[in-house]
Amino acid sequence: MELVTIDDIRAAADRIRGAVVRTPLLPSPWADAERPLWLKPENLQPIGAFKLRGAQNAIAGLDARTRRRGVVAYSSGNHAQAVAYAARTFGIPAHIVMPDVTPQVKVDNTRAYGAEVVLVPIGERESAAYELVEQLGAVLVPPFDHPDIIAGQGTIGLEIATDLPDVELVLVPVSGGGLASGVGTAVKALAPDATVIGVEPELAGDSQESLRAGVLADWPIDRRARTIADGLRSQPSDLTFAHLRAVLDDIVTVSEDEIRSAMATLATKGRLVAEPSGAVGLAAYLHRAGELPRGRTVIVVSGGNVDRDLLADVLGG
Amino acid sequence: MELVTIDDIRAAADRIRGAVVRTPLLPSPWADAERPLWLKPENLQPIGAFKLRGAQNAIAGLDARTRRRGVVAYSSGNHAQAVAYAARTFGIPAHIVMPDVTPQVKVDNTRAYGAEVVLVPIGERESAAYELVEQLGAVLVPPFDHPDIIAGQGTIGLEIATDLPDVELVLVPVSGGGLASGVGTAVKALAPDATVIGVEPELAGDSQESLRAGVLADWPIDRRARTIADGLRSQPSDLTFAHLRAVLDDIVTVSEDEIRSAMATLATKGRLVAEPSGAVGLAAYLHRAGELPRGRTVIVVSGGNVDRDLLADVLGG
Repeated sequence: MELVTIDDIRAAADRIRGAVVRTPLLPSPWADAERPLWLKPENLQPIGAFKLRGAQNAIAGLDARTRRRGVVAYSSGNHAQAVAYAARTFGIPAHIVMPDVTPQVKVDNTRAYGAEVVLVPIGERESAAYELVEQLGAVLVPPFDHPDIIAGQGTIGLEIATDLPDVELVLVPVSGGGLASGVGTAVKALAPDATVIGVEPELAGDSQESLRAGVLADWPIDRRARTIADGLRSQPSDLTFAHLRAVLDDIVTVSEDEIRSAMATLATKGRLVAEPSGAVGLAAYLHRAGELPRGRTVIVVSGGNVDRDLLADVLGG
Repeated sequence: MELVTIDDIRAAADRIRGAVVRTPLLPSPWADAERPLWLKPENLQPIGAFKLRGAQNAIAGLDARTRRRGVVAYSSGNHAQAVAYAARTFGIPAHIVMPDVTPQVKVDNTRAYGAEVVLVPIGERESAAYELVEQLGAVLVPPFDHPDIIAGQGTIGLEIATDLPDVELVLVPVSGGGLASGVGTAVKALAPDATVIGVEPELAGDSQESLRAGVLADWPIDRRARTIADGLRSQPSDLTFAHLRAVLDDIVTVSEDEIRSAMATLATKGRLVAEPSGAVGLAAYLHRAGELPRGRTVIVVSGGNVDRDLLADVLGG
């Protein structure tokens, strides 16, 4: 299987420049002095999550004639908004298939970026999306299982290594694995001495099990769905798993309470609103220090789309 | 009176490069489409506020021999932490005079940056600071009443005009006026067609009164202290007022409820934690649109040092 290279990631950076925010590394003097900490705030992308990088790169990579026919995605989360937003920057139609149980606010947000939302029973998401692809001659933009998506997310790692060439540890959330694949590929190419560790919830710890066993584990969705980190309930594909095996040194897991505590610390000390999935890296840094190497650490804060009630609850707790 | 120039601000930018975060402009697609909005997140500076820029520039501007003797400041707020943090980057001593009623957490934060905190009765802050200056041969770093402070804060305006040359409106908080003076000077020099409007709480609306009358009004501190925006209770000096008259088109005021509502919107839509003072610009954008020109708008989110309880309360409300 051919893996994404640092050249692919550099090409992605050129393609998406100006359409995504070039996020800074944020020094965090409140952290452990022996493990200096920087935050990479991808929650500050216009749609509130890193997903825009991959979607933008995938759409930019289509030939103009194909692109004009539009794009299709199925998602009820950040990927839906990423594809809708990216399609709008190209002035092309986007059709987003969502389960008919999706909260109205997410439907509204996706429509607000000009996308056509198609609501279907949850079991028909995938088939409905492929029907639309055939019917419209449009292209499906997958959430993680594509080299252009991995390369787009990898631009985060390119920026980390550019801004902090002597980085020693990068902590990155793992779900479908597109983000960790891309970030790990860039960091290992540019800062080969750095350790790259994935982080996931204990309650959706399939990737840790897979990485340690060397073969993809399959956890049923109702098992993965137990975590509050709703962005981390997917499983790697063969493509992303091949990347994770090549570029991750390990995966650590964190508890639900550790995720909530890290969300509160990000808000009060880091002045950033993170969704649960975006806080797992800090949860590992704060609560699993014994499982991590010590040194200059960068945490990818992957997203910030969180219900106001949950945020208030975490801060009040 | 000699005013700070764009050349002073460019020199400040060179001096502080690397020691402060080069914050991005954050596109905000959730805002009014007819008034496209970008946030300038100065709450993401390492001490949680823009004040680091001025303090860093003022200390960098001292000759090396003078600087070695250390710096003194009196403040219980963001300026205290800014001077302490900046002094540490130069490896010089910092003495911060604070009222003995200062909340312990602010004392602890300032000490955590290596500063010596001197607690005195609130009425003796200024005299105690000047005594330290004499005793130590150290230099006082004022919170706003100095050209180097104004030039340092002005680097925010330089970055805004660089990143968005066709900006049409900049909203900036006004208190002692160092921030608004610097930002206004840079924006008017580089984007002369842009409107620059200061924002302050109605309950501390002395600067609006002053600017409209053309002479400095004097509100007693207990009148200004009514607002929850604890960073906006100072009044301009002769130096900053001369700048405000030269570079601000107007000052608008916002209510306490509007400030709280803007804090909640910044958290949920902007994914940024702002203190009340940092939210006044968005409060004006959201609630005082009729008093503002329409067009490409940048809001300076000046700081994010807010009590967890207040943040939880604002989000729960």
